[in-house]
Amino acid sequence: MTTASICTIGDEILIGQIVDTNSSHIAEALEDAGVEVRRMVSIGDSREDILRTLSEELTLCDIVITTGGLGPTKDDITKAALAELSGSKAYKTDAVQASIVRDILSSRGLDILPSNLAQADVPEAAEVLPNRLGTAPIMAFRFGAERFGHECSLYSLPGVPHEAVGAIPQIVDDIRKHFTLSDICHRSIMVYGLAESALSELIAPWEDSLEAGIHLAYLPSTLTGVRLRLSVYGGDGPEENERIDRAVDGLKGILGDRIYSLNDDNLEHVVGTILKSSGKTLSVAESCTGGEISHLVTSVPGSSAYYLGSVTSYAISVKENVLGVDPEVIRTKGVVSSEVAAAMAEGVRKLTGSDYAVATTGLAGPDGDGSYPVGTVWIGIAGPRGTRTEMRTYKNDRKRNIERFAAASLDALRRMLLEDLRHDA
Amino acid sequence: MTTASICTIGDEILIGQIVDTNSSHIAEALEDAGVEVRRMVSIGDSREDILRTLSEELTLCDIVITTGGLGPTKDDITKAALAELSGSKAYKTDAVQASIVRDILSSRGLDILPSNLAQADVPEAAEVLPNRLGTAPIMAFRFGAERFGHECSLYSLPGVPHEAVGAIPQIVDDIRKHFTLSDICHRSIMVYGLAESALSELIAPWEDSLEAGIHLAYLPSTLTGVRLRLSVYGGDGPEENERIDRAVDGLKGILGDRIYSLNDDNLEHVVGTILKSSGKTLSVAESCTGGEISHLVTSVPGSSAYYLGSVTSYAISVKENVLGVDPEVIRTKGVVSSEVAAAMAEGVRKLTGSDYAVATTGLAGPDGDGSYPVGTVWIGIAGPRGTRTEMRTYKNDRKRNIERFAAASLDALRRMLLEDLRHDA
Repeated sequence: MTTASICTIGDEILIGQIVDTNSSHIAEALEDAGVEVRRMVSIGDSREDILRTLSEELTLCDIVITTGGLGPTKDDITKAALAELSGSKAYKTDAVQASIVRDILSSRGLDILPSNLAQADVPEAAEVLPNRLGTAPIMAFRFGAERFGHECSLYSLPGVPHEAVGAIPQIVDDIRKHFTLSDICHRSIMVYGLAESALSELIAPWEDSLEAGIHLAYLPSTLTGVRLRLSVYGGDGPEENERIDRAVDGLKGILGDRIYSLNDDNLEHVVGTILKSSGKTLSVAESCTGGEISHLVTSVPGSSAYYLGSVTSYAISVKENVLGVDPEVIRTKGVVSSEVAAAMAEGVRKLTGSDYAVATTGLAGPDGDGSYPVGTVWIGIAGPRGTRTEMRTYKNDRKRNIERFAAASLDALRRMLLEDLRHDA
Repeated sequence: MTTASICTIGDEILIGQIVDTNSSHIAEALEDAGVEVRRMVSIGDSREDILRTLSEELTLCDIVITTGGLGPTKDDITKAALAELSGSKAYKTDAVQASIVRDILSSRGLDILPSNLAQADVPEAAEVLPNRLGTAPIMAFRFGAERFGHECSLYSLPGVPHEAVGAIPQIVDDIRKHFTLSDICHRSIMVYGLAESALSELIAPWEDSLEAGIHLAYLPSTLTGVRLRLSVYGGDGPEENERIDRAVDGLKGILGDRIYSLNDDNLEHVVGTILKSSGKTLSVAESCTGGEISHLVTSVPGSSAYYLGSVTSYAISVKENVLGVDPEVIRTKGVVSSEVAAAMAEGVRKLTGSDYAVATTGLAGPDGDGSYPVGTVWIGIAGPRGTRTEMRTYKNDRKRNIERFAAASLDALRRMLLEDLRHDA
C-alpha cells in the first residue's frame, strides 16, 4: 500500500498555541483515496530540523505532505529548505501564481509589494499546483529511487487552514496520477445512545459473522455517539458495495433507530433533513445548554427554512415571563425537573408557533443546586402529538456536559420526528 | 535547554478521525515550565513503529512524552512495547492504581473484570504516577546515557483527553525533579480589533525599542484576536517581571482598550468579570449568530450571576412578536440593518429587564439576500446610557463567520462596558 507522512512546520504548534487540524483533514482524504498515513510529525521553523526530518520521512514513506512555513515573513523558511532538499540552485517565477497574488491583493485594495510577488517564486525543481485561496503556491517535488531508496514525492501546502484544506483535492488528484492506489469501499454507520463497550457487546455476534474481508473500526466521539466504519479493500464497485450493504442490513436489524446516519451526517444535519423534507418547523428553549443547541441547529446551511428561533432562559424570570412557565411548578418541582422541561418546550412552541420544540434544564457544573447530581439534564420535546421528557446524567466537565446535553436533546428530537413520520405514513 | 518530543500513539489519529488536542496542551505546559518542545510525532498501534520512533525521539530529545495506546483492548499495545523498550522481563502490579481501578468501576456500578485489573500492571522498569481520572496508570521510564547517548526520560500518558490533560501537573513536577530547567518569565497580551499585519506596523517602533533579552511572539487566533507574548529567559523573579511590566506599559500607551486581557482570559471571561464586579446583567438577541454568543457567555462558570438569557430570532415572526421589532422598520430598512440590530438589542433588554443587551443580524453564508455582502453583520449594543450599532464584514465560511461575528459582538459590548465604568467612576 502507498504510504504517507504528514509534516507540520511551524514554531506556533510546538509551543502549544495552535492545534494542528490540517493533518487530520489531509489524513482523512488520503485514507479515503487508499493511501496509508503512517506518520505525522510537527517540527519548528529550523533549517536543520526541516532538512533532517523531511529526509527521514521520505526514506520511510512514499509521499510526504508538508504544511506551513510558506509565509512572506523572515521566520518562514520552508521554501528555502525545500530548495536545498531538492538541489535547486535557483528560483523560477510561476506566472499563474503571480497573477493570483496580484488578483488577491487588488481585490483587498492592497499595494503589491516585492515581498508579495516573491510568493510566486519557487525552487526550480518544483512543480506548481496553483493555490487560488492564497498567495503561497502548492509545490510538488519528485525524488528518484537513488535519493531515498524508492521513488517518492513531497507536496508542500500552505499552513493557513482553509488554504491547506482547499489544496487537498488537487494533491489527491496529483497523487492518483503518480501512484497506483488500491480502491477502498468505506461506509460509516453513526450510532447514538450506546457507549462503545455496550455497543461492542450488543453487536458481537454480528461482528463474528461478518464476511471475510470486511473490516470494522470503532471511532468514538462525544458529540456524535459512536461512528462504526466498515471497509473492504481492493475495490469500490457494485460487488464491494453490495457486500457492505448486506453487513449494514444486519446491523440495522440489531440497532434500529439508534443508527442515525449512514453518510457521516451529524445529528443537527439529520434533524434538519427530516424537518425540511416534512415541512415542519422547530424552536428551542435552553437553560443549561445556554445556546449550544440553537448554535448547532443554525450551523447547518439553509436551517432558516425550518428553524424559527430560541429562548435561552438562564434566569428564572425569563422562564416565567418569556416562556410562561408557571412559578408554582418551579417552586414545587424545582427548576431542574421533568415538569419545567416540558413547560419550557411547550412555552417556546406556543411563543414561536413552531411544530416542534426542544427544551433543556439541568446542571452543567461545576456547581450544583442539590436537586440532582451535577451533569444531569432534563430534556423536554413538544410536538403536534404531545410532549415527552427524558433525563440523562453525564460525568464530564462543564464544557463537555453542555455538548452532551445538546447532542442528547437533538437525538431525542430525532426519535420523536421519526415516530411521527411513521404515524403519519 | 532541556528538549522534549511528544508522541501520540493510535490509528484513529492517523486516519484523520480524531484531532490530537493533547499534544498542544502538553506543549503549552512544557513551554511554560522552560522545556523546549522540538518535535511532535503521531504513529499507529504498531509494535515496530512504536519501538523505532520512541528510540529515535529519545536519541533526539531529553524527554519523550507519549499519549495513547493504554486501553484494555487488544489493539492497545503501547504498554507491551514500553516493556520491550525498557528491557522489562516481567510486569508488576501497582497497588495504588489497582485500588483506583476498583474505586472507579465500583462508583460506576460495574463488575471488576480481570482485563480491568490488568490496567494496574506495569513493566517492572516503570515508575508509576497514579492516574486518579482513569484506569490506566501514568508511567515514567529512565534511560542512562549508555542507551541513547544522553540521560533521558519517557513518560507514558493515557490518550483520553481529560486524563492526559489531568496528568500534566504530575509529569511537570516529576520533570522538575529530574531535569534542571531554566526559568522563563512570560506575559500574554490579548489584543482585539487589529489584524496581525496592522498590529505589527502599529507597534513596530515599540518593538524596535524593546530592552535586550525581551522576546516578542505573535500568536494569532480567529476568535480571540491576536495574542502577543513577551518572554524573558533565565528567571521569573521581581526583576524579570518589572522588565516585562515596563514593556507592557509601553504597549498599553499605544493600544489602549484594544488590549482586553493580560492573563490569557478570552472575551467572554473579560465581559463576565466586568459585569459581575459591577453588578450588571446581560441579555442577548441573536439572528445570524444563532446561539453562539449565548453559548460563549454561558461557557463561563458562574455566568448565571449576570446572564439572564437570550432570544434567537431566526424567523422574522420571532423578531416581531417576541422581540417587538417594528415590522415597518424591517420592511423599509431590511432585516440586516443598523435599525433592526438596535431594535433587537432594545427589545431583548426590555423583555428580560437586563442592564445590557447585545444583538446581531447579518449574513453568515453561504447564501446572501442581496442587501449586504455575505459575511456582513450589524451588531447592536443597548445599555443604560443608550444604544449603538456597528457593522463588520468578514470573508470566511459560515462557521468562521459566525465565530467572528460573536467575537466582534462581545468586543463591542466590552468597549461599552469600559466606557460606562469610566463614566460612572
